[in-house]
Amino acid sequence: MTFNIITLFPEFFESPLKASLLGKAVAAGTVAINLINPRDFAEGKHRKVDDTPYGGGAGMVMMVEPIALAVESIRKSDPETHVALLAARGRLFDQQVVKEYAPNFKSITLICGHYEGVDERVATHVAHESLRIGNFVLSGGEPAALTIIDAVARCQPGFMGNADSLKHESFDTGVTFEHAQYTRPEDWRGNKVPDVLLSGNHGKIAEWRKTNSADTAF
Amino acid sequence: MTFNIITLFPEFFESPLKASLLGKAVAAGTVAINLINPRDFAEGKHRKVDDTPYGGGAGMVMMVEPIALAVESIRKSDPETHVALLAARGRLFDQQVVKEYAPNFKSITLICGHYEGVDERVATHVAHESLRIGNFVLSGGEPAALTIIDAVARCQPGFMGNADSLKHESFDTGVTFEHAQYTRPEDWRGNKVPDVLLSGNHGKIAEWRKTNSADTAF
Repeated sequence: MTFNIITLFPEFFESPLKASLLGKAVAAGTVAINLINPRDFAEGKHRKVDDTPYGGGAGMVMMVEPIALAVESIRKSDPETHVALLAARGRLFDQQVVKEYAPNFKSITLICGHYEGVDERVATHVAHESLRIGNFVLSGGEPAALTIIDAVARCQPGFMGNADSLKHESFDTGVTFEHAQYTRPEDWRGNKVPDVLLSGNHGKIAEWRKTNSADTAF
Repeated sequence: MTFNIITLFPEFFESPLKASLLGKAVAAGTVAINLINPRDFAEGKHRKVDDTPYGGGAGMVMMVEPIALAVESIRKSDPETHVALLAARGRLFDQQVVKEYAPNFKSITLICGHYEGVDERVATHVAHESLRIGNFVLSGGEPAALTIIDAVARCQPGFMGNADSLKHESFDTGVTFEHAQYTRPEDWRGNKVPDVLLSGNHGKIAEWRKTNSADTAF
């Protein structure tokens, strides 16, 4: 699976793409990541990528043309890539979107917004859709891109060490939350593991886990 | 403002903490970030930080003791730090949580979960609360930690270049989404900026922006 990240800050991604399970997947070739800087597609000596907003207001807005050219350069070798703009106005990213993305797209291009926003014509004419990862404001789309890549990439065969890890997990089964997990020691500073988990009774353990998950509602 | 990150993968954070606005804030001393590895508090030759789940099941569970010792070591010099476990079972992080965190906590400690989860006694006896950034599953808490740090840190005075940037923005004002933004050129490949934004009529521009924000509902 390929992820193309269009970002003014490609250096942001350097260490996360080497660390942890994602780093292993990149090293193993399960996941390929390309970093594209819209500044490389900007004109003039200063390679201008942003300008003041029409209608006035604080801050700068990212221009459409350098982003459009960046996407077009990707499409030359990767015409089927699904292009999502990361923006506060986007569709909310959740496990349903993961299930839609992970099996259906071999290549995903994520456009990281910055400054006060991105010229709306990126959303309407360049990207297939816009996504937001939550109802909060970020200084840029980079942490959102990492989040989406992790959530989607981990569904690729071989990403998680144990394929069973993808089953019975939160948000996948219709159960809102995972059940509580406990490991050694049985008694930690006077706080004990629930007896049922030590009982060896698989039926009761399954029942406890189901109830424990359901009980932890919003 | 200080963020302590308890993580098995401190190297994950190396480049994001140097890049973009967050990197500038770290360099300027507006934001301080400490990385703490629970493995440094684990016992034995192998410095074991995880074990199999009680009651059976796939994967490994992070042990409570190394995390508890890591938090206690932070509290020695930073006793007031607010400790949040990043977990799928947590409270949903949104702009309301940002508004709660940004002015009230001088120090926040984020515990990154990994593997199949974290011993529940971290949530019940070590952390003040648990947070999740969305209804999706990550391979670990690291992208969530970066997301929360960015969202909270950007509210610190001096983080954003323009203080006005914090006003009139999505999720802060009760308006669900920001209005569309446009910048040069007026005509991009035949797609024009809405006339009203070029009118110079501030009343009409404000009205258009309000309607444009409200129209983009869930």
